[in-house]
Amino acid sequence: MGESFGVRLQERLRERGPLCVGIDPSSALLEAWDRSDNAEGVEFFALAVLEAVSGVVAAIKPQVAFFERFGSAGFRVLERLITEAHDADLLVVADAKRGDFAPTNEGYAQAWLRDGSPLAVDAVTASPYLGVDALAPLFEAAWASGRGVFVLAATSNEDGRELQRARTSDGGRVEDLVLRRVAELNHRDSGLGSLGVVLGATRDAPEFDLSTLAGPYLVPGVGAQGAGAQDVARLFERCEEGTVLVSVSRDILRAGPERRGLHDATRRWRDDLLAAL
Amino acid sequence: MGESFGVRLQERLRERGPLCVGIDPSSALLEAWDRSDNAEGVEFFALAVLEAVSGVVAAIKPQVAFFERFGSAGFRVLERLITEAHDADLLVVADAKRGDFAPTNEGYAQAWLRDGSPLAVDAVTASPYLGVDALAPLFEAAWASGRGVFVLAATSNEDGRELQRARTSDGGRVEDLVLRRVAELNHRDSGLGSLGVVLGATRDAPEFDLSTLAGPYLVPGVGAQGAGAQDVARLFERCEEGTVLVSVSRDILRAGPERRGLHDATRRWRDDLLAAL
Repeated sequence: MGESFGVRLQERLRERGPLCVGIDPSSALLEAWDRSDNAEGVEFFALAVLEAVSGVVAAIKPQVAFFERFGSAGFRVLERLITEAHDADLLVVADAKRGDFAPTNEGYAQAWLRDGSPLAVDAVTASPYLGVDALAPLFEAAWASGRGVFVLAATSNEDGRELQRARTSDGGRVEDLVLRRVAELNHRDSGLGSLGVVLGATRDAPEFDLSTLAGPYLVPGVGAQGAGAQDVARLFERCEEGTVLVSVSRDILRAGPERRGLHDATRRWRDDLLAAL
Repeated sequence: MGESFGVRLQERLRERGPLCVGIDPSSALLEAWDRSDNAEGVEFFALAVLEAVSGVVAAIKPQVAFFERFGSAGFRVLERLITEAHDADLLVVADAKRGDFAPTNEGYAQAWLRDGSPLAVDAVTASPYLGVDALAPLFEAAWASGRGVFVLAATSNEDGRELQRARTSDGGRVEDLVLRRVAELNHRDSGLGSLGVVLGATRDAPEFDLSTLAGPYLVPGVGAQGAGAQDVARLFERCEEGTVLVSVSRDILRAGPERRGLHDATRRWRDDLLAAL
């Protein structure tokens, strides 16, 4: 882990393209796959997706909520998935959306971004409701260990817009406040920074100039949520190559459980994104 | 679980007073207690606090981040703490600050608010960065199972103010948007509603009239973070009895590991709060 997450991610995206496959073992998808809605079903699902996408994409994004449903048994499955994904040379972004005040974020940093933790991943998503600066323990842990953080800025869902587009005392929007602050923090690094943001492909361009983040974007909202490869290309047209990680979940996952279906859906999305971006 | 969380909580607070003891097995506190910083240390810590506060207070509030530090092994400890706390007739509020878009919040609802889940608690804290309405699966699960949700409105830390006091398109602040929306949802219930908010005792009164929430408040910021019993009393002076759950963590926890110290610190805070509120 000598290199920073930003540098490692950019290399990987240049090699394998921008697709990140979400791993969402929800009740609905387990039912569609005709699997039991328990920790064993989650394990089957997660490892089947992993197997089908290995060698095809840069990264996977397990949605922690769907593992957490089964408590410690679900977390054991997540730990196994993380280990096997690393063995398969995939980057793992834990979609956990953790966030608290700074002393508590130290706990989340130890969980997701510390060498030796069973949940240690390449990057974790974080929520800034208690302030971007409250996430400092996550940022420090990421820098110290060659890992990364994606902070929520503008999410793909309609429900989030009112809050994320509220205006702070200086007149800027909340989503721009997050983007600006993350950009400031990234400018300490040479090369691509290790602090990214989550920016939904279903959203209009924010006021912030996206080409100046100096860090990566994690982009949901593609596929089942409505945006396509062209929307991503338009939104990030001025950004450097290898800085946009596009997450597709349901549109790929519902092609399972057969390996062939998952694999083909993954390749189609990868190729569409490669052609557009 | 026939009764709603709101009604159960209010009865409990009237019987035992407003104190909720935070259980925060952080690296710093485990070191202060001269315990190893691992899952065994976390277990010792959590069960020692539980034992010292049983029969004295209404509720405990485990901080999930400090259990999550040890992955599935940490969650096993949390599961044991929840079971033993329920055996000791304590309410458990999981301080998890979970929050995502609605389909994912279904997963968090299954984890924390569904009968039979190993992590099922009386209430869970939730973060509204993706919109209060995105939390609907948590609200629905709470109503269906006699459990509750505390949505972050105005947190106790300085870092959060800029975002939480930003103004939405109708001119109101984000913190007031949360309070208003939770109040609207509570008015479906007779008696105290089961949807609460987190409101730090270190904060100024919001524009929203706190006496109209029709649900409970979870109040951090007391003790080590600077506010005292009188600040709580002032902030909530117009609220009905049994609607304010005051969380104290470090100021009690650093009195450990001896039972006597923990017990005495807990009683002191309980009596101070009872006298003031």
